[in-house]
Amino acid sequence: MSRYDFASDNTAGATPEAMAVLLAANDVGPTPGYGTDPVTSEAANAVRAWLDADAEVRFVASGTAANAISLATLCRPFEAVLAHEHAHITTDETGAPGYFGHGLGIIGLPGASAKIDPVSLDFALCRQDTPHKQSPAALSLTNATEYGGIYTEEELTRLTTPAQTRGCAVHLDGARLANAVAAGFDQKAIAGAGVDILVLGGTKAGMPPTEAVVIFNKPLARRFDARLKQSGQLPSKGRFYAAPFIGMLRDGALERHAAHANAMAQRLAEGMSFDLKHPVQANGVFVDMPQDAHDRLTATGWVTYRGLDSSVRFMCSWATKPETVDQVLAAIAAIA
Amino acid sequence: MSRYDFASDNTAGATPEAMAVLLAANDVGPTPGYGTDPVTSEAANAVRAWLDADAEVRFVASGTAANAISLATLCRPFEAVLAHEHAHITTDETGAPGYFGHGLGIIGLPGASAKIDPVSLDFALCRQDTPHKQSPAALSLTNATEYGGIYTEEELTRLTTPAQTRGCAVHLDGARLANAVAAGFDQKAIAGAGVDILVLGGTKAGMPPTEAVVIFNKPLARRFDARLKQSGQLPSKGRFYAAPFIGMLRDGALERHAAHANAMAQRLAEGMSFDLKHPVQANGVFVDMPQDAHDRLTATGWVTYRGLDSSVRFMCSWATKPETVDQVLAAIAAIA
Amino acid sequence: MSRYDFASDNTAGATPEAMAVLLAANDVGPTPGYGTDPVTSEAANAVRAWLDADAEVRFVASGTAANAISLATLCRPFEAVLAHEHAHITTDETGAPGYFGHGLGIIGLPGASAKIDPVSLDFALCRQDTPHKQSPAALSLTNATEYGGIYTEEELTRLTTPAQTRGCAVHLDGARLANAVAAGFDQKAIAGAGVDILVLGGTKAGMPPTEAVVIFNKPLARRFDARLKQSGQLPSKGRFYAAPFIGMLRDGALERHAAHANAMAQRLAEGMSFDLKHPVQANGVFVDMPQDAHDRLTATGWVTYRGLDSSVRFMCSWATKPETVDQVLAAIAAIA
Amino acid sequence: MSRYDFASDNTAGATPEAMAVLLAANDVGPTPGYGTDPVTSEAANAVRAWLDADAEVRFVASGTAANAISLATLCRPFEAVLAHEHAHITTDETGAPGYFGHGLGIIGLPGASAKIDPVSLDFALCRQDTPHKQSPAALSLTNATEYGGIYTEEELTRLTTPAQTRGCAVHLDGARLANAVAAGFDQKAIAGAGVDILVLGGTKAGMPPTEAVVIFNKPLARRFDARLKQSGQLPSKGRFYAAPFIGMLRDGALERHAAHANAMAQRLAEGMSFDLKHPVQANGVFVDMPQDAHDRLTATGWVTYRGLDSSVRFMCSWATKPETVDQVLAAIAAIA
Repeated sequence: MSRYDFASDNTAGATPEAMAVLLAANDVGPTPGYGTDPVTSEAANAVRAWLDADAEVRFVASGTAANAISLATLCRPFEAVLAHEHAHITTDETGAPGYFGHGLGIIGLPGASAKIDPVSLDFALCRQDTPHKQSPAALSLTNATEYGGIYTEEELTRLTTPAQTRGCAVHLDGARLANAVAAGFDQKAIAGAGVDILVLGGTKAGMPPTEAVVIFNKPLARRFDARLKQSGQLPSKGRFYAAPFIGMLRDGALERHAAHANAMAQRLAEGMSFDLKHPVQANGVFVDMPQDAHDRLTATGWVTYRGLDSSVRFMCSWATKPETVDQVLAAIAAIA
Repeated sequence: MSRYDFASDNTAGATPEAMAVLLAANDVGPTPGYGTDPVTSEAANAVRAWLDADAEVRFVASGTAANAISLATLCRPFEAVLAHEHAHITTDETGAPGYFGHGLGIIGLPGASAKIDPVSLDFALCRQDTPHKQSPAALSLTNATEYGGIYTEEELTRLTTPAQTRGCAVHLDGARLANAVAAGFDQKAIAGAGVDILVLGGTKAGMPPTEAVVIFNKPLARRFDARLKQSGQLPSKGRFYAAPFIGMLRDGALERHAAHANAMAQRLAEGMSFDLKHPVQANGVFVDMPQDAHDRLTATGWVTYRGLDSSVRFMCSWATKPETVDQVLAAIAAIA
Repeated sequence: MSRYDFASDNTAGATPEAMAVLLAANDVGPTPGYGTDPVTSEAANAVRAWLDADAEVRFVASGTAANAISLATLCRPFEAVLAHEHAHITTDETGAPGYFGHGLGIIGLPGASAKIDPVSLDFALCRQDTPHKQSPAALSLTNATEYGGIYTEEELTRLTTPAQTRGCAVHLDGARLANAVAAGFDQKAIAGAGVDILVLGGTKAGMPPTEAVVIFNKPLARRFDARLKQSGQLPSKGRFYAAPFIGMLRDGALERHAAHANAMAQRLAEGMSFDLKHPVQANGVFVDMPQDAHDRLTATGWVTYRGLDSSVRFMCSWATKPETVDQVLAAIAAIA
Repeated sequence: MSRYDFASDNTAGATPEAMAVLLAANDVGPTPGYGTDPVTSEAANAVRAWLDADAEVRFVASGTAANAISLATLCRPFEAVLAHEHAHITTDETGAPGYFGHGLGIIGLPGASAKIDPVSLDFALCRQDTPHKQSPAALSLTNATEYGGIYTEEELTRLTTPAQTRGCAVHLDGARLANAVAAGFDQKAIAGAGVDILVLGGTKAGMPPTEAVVIFNKPLARRFDARLKQSGQLPSKGRFYAAPFIGMLRDGALERHAAHANAMAQRLAEGMSFDLKHPVQANGVFVDMPQDAHDRLTATGWVTYRGLDSSVRFMCSWATKPETVDQVLAAIAAIA
């Protein structure tokens, strides 16, 4: 039987905290639609409080759409987004930014553990602006990164500052921001770091499908609901996307579950029979595993994926149990 | 205090049957993502059985996106969709079909109660094909319609047959198909009626946000998951969109709840102090109400909307209670 | 044999003045590409002088593209352009604005002779801004209009002022601006009238295919060359598009040829055996002609088109000869 | 004074043969518009005869648009085009394929002298088809290539055959096809080599701005004029784009001028003081020139560009004179 425990952090269900508020929200009777209901207001307040920022907040169904809509807000079709060459928007969203952004380009930048190398960013920002290429209009960062790296506040600012100086807006993909925060990143630094739009992930953090779009640069929010509606991301029953955030932002549930996921990754890393490809800072473990070993592991039923950096990835989630970590470690040891 | 009971059929929460299966699905442990999980398979089977058809089935988050993606599948940018001039895709989706379809056009057709007049369709289909206009490539129908009209199987075929003869594909917006079925329309006739893609509504039928895209014309499904992913509609935790359909397609729950909504609309119509604008066949009541009367009603707290046909709309849902109908009728009588 | 003399004003070739400069420009030896050549500079200066305005000027190949690119500059996909319901962009460009503008909408407004009725504009500008519809972001005007109407400077301002007040940018389709100017409209009033982007027509004015895009609102010109390149409208051999404007803006050639076209339309109107549908102010004559009469006329070889207002259109150009007008008048008289 | 002789093959004007027919076409009196005129018919016949193929032929203004429209015809937004990583569509068209193709992707492949390495193509064609990436739907080739390489008929087939086998359509960018033909490539082999759409370059071959789109796979031509109109590439005065092809396809003018350009490149290569980066097969010479040497050359007035492969490029055209080649060679020798 196939086991998907470590295939991704989206193979888990939703946490009790998220579901409890969702169920309660379902029972409040008729509410106005399209994000104008009191549950949505309360959730937006919770997000603002958590980020300690005045910002426009919307709740949508899809992280891919949230990222793509954000980039389309920041970048015109004949311009480009600077992003890590292995970022999710670059490699794993089937070209969604170009679809929602009508052909906008992505310029891939290098950097260890999917953190953008600052010098490569400087170089890209200084490229001559010519009509024959899509020149940068936005910078997209991810924290925690695709390879479990975490930007410190200083590292983030080191990237956002030159971007802003050169007229680039900043998007932060926070699909795993909770894991970064649980590892020490201060989410209250985001507003001051020059981020224009944050996508705050719910799904991978242990919620049912939901993501928050947080617009710090408020003039960008003009007619944003129309933008969302046209993009199929202004849900009529908005409370279903808002409620989980209320549950998870209450009493530190978000950080608690993320810290657990991170701890499970540490446990996995510590017992791992193969070399680590990246430092384990968040909830993923990336290992150098030869193809034949990976095939043998797969044959035991544990499903895992090999990434663009050729590492095999083990993702932990809020729902990962220590004993499951130990089980997979035993299976790995057996095939090593 | 504002009352949204009749503002729309999406102001209600989700039914117990839908939520029960959703909760159970949340507890099954790690499942593969992006619609490859067993819950999604079971739900797709349930949809196929309900429609008595071999078809590709996908579950997505948004009706607007589901319609727009379907139309983009059937119609190229330099072509047009034939639709009722008051259809949801024409008037109420912020141009989503043109956005997802890269500028595809919509040609609005007249017809009573938002049912397309067959003669106007014939005329549109026979227009000369010129490079200076977007010529028809698809026909979009809605059942039940925006004004609560219901196409019989014969009426549907009367429209789909000439469309197909002239090379047009057919899309059926079934946001309220459950209400049509509860009123006597046979959903098993759809596959044979020449419909290429059906959007089967979950949200307005009493589910949490979810819609099923049903592709009867299976070659159109090639790389459809890539299309959905790029459009932000291939949810990683797919079971949350699939599970409600399992609950609602079991033991006739879908039809039972829709029949209740329809019955509430009948009750509302029978006690109505204003003239009906359209026959009440589904779950909506549309009345001729002068603006000053509408203002007085609104002042009492009951929120309702005036449509493009100038009628004031009262929508009933699975959650509408007879006593609430009586309350609003009393309020209406008082201001009449 | 078919005669296309009056089918459109684009059935004529190019004027000697336009061709002479084009030929000279071809002989100047190697020039830099993509609009950076001295011929293009000279032509841009000529356009600025003619308009008495500081503006960015670009020369492109296509009026449809020039309009669509301009509108995409002024209006986001989830917004709409206000335009006359019979304007060229609305009815005759195969949805190009929505294609270049990624689904942007067009809201059609009524008005006699394709001039927008000011009250209908005011009404449209005051519509509630809702996320469910594409709200206006731009106003598109045409002078001379599709039915040969000409806005005075005051009439233009009567429309642009409320548009600007409500935050709408203004596009002016000047495919036949030369005809308007020849009839008394002062092109030097455009810059002061709140127009953001003008498309100054070359083709219908007697040039080989070329149009000038004139950006009065200069911040909109940022990265405009990249926009044009991406849109396939930054020609490498730019002098071929620029040169004709030099020839035509020298010694009043543009106005002289347009005045001739207008005079031919007057001659045609005066001898016309059918009722005029619109006042003849520019170079087109629009007549009430029954279908059977039109069929008989067509049978004589004279090709003309029936418009959306049901009139039959006779267009005159710089190349129309008085004797040809008399020939068609005789043919019309014979079938009347 | 800056000299643009070798900056590109589009810095030259148009040939006498092209201009003579253009001038004659201008004088034929009123003609129907939008490609329905007799000049366009004659030119289309000439193209078909030259290619020895039954094909749909259209004449458009822009190579960038022609390529992008062709790719949008062959590839849906959630699919990708396989192309050389240094192909014009990949690097030098400001993302036009993604703009016209609504976000379609480009997968860059390696290969010497911008000819796609067949093994890398095979590998790309065999990649697993997943919904998370844009999978290949089309192969785009260029002959002659960006670096002056020329595919033989066999080499072309070696690439088109596996592409077709895997369901990919084939686009051939023939901006410099004339140069390839002058070097021995048989243009009559294209139709049989599995090419679906060819863009046959006029501009760089010595014409005023014009390109021919040749659709061998005729079902793809359905409503192609509507596609062109919407894309701003269905010119009303079509004869201006068609006529040059008549002149150039008569009496071998196209090949004669291309052979001259190729010969000038050979002359340039033979006298070159720097190492050649690529074999000189067509009309371009690519040399390894250190930056300081390039700066000194530029200071002498000769404008040339450094490419993505870091070589400095010298392009010859139909208008390049032997003495000009000798002049630039002397300047190069002086700074070497």
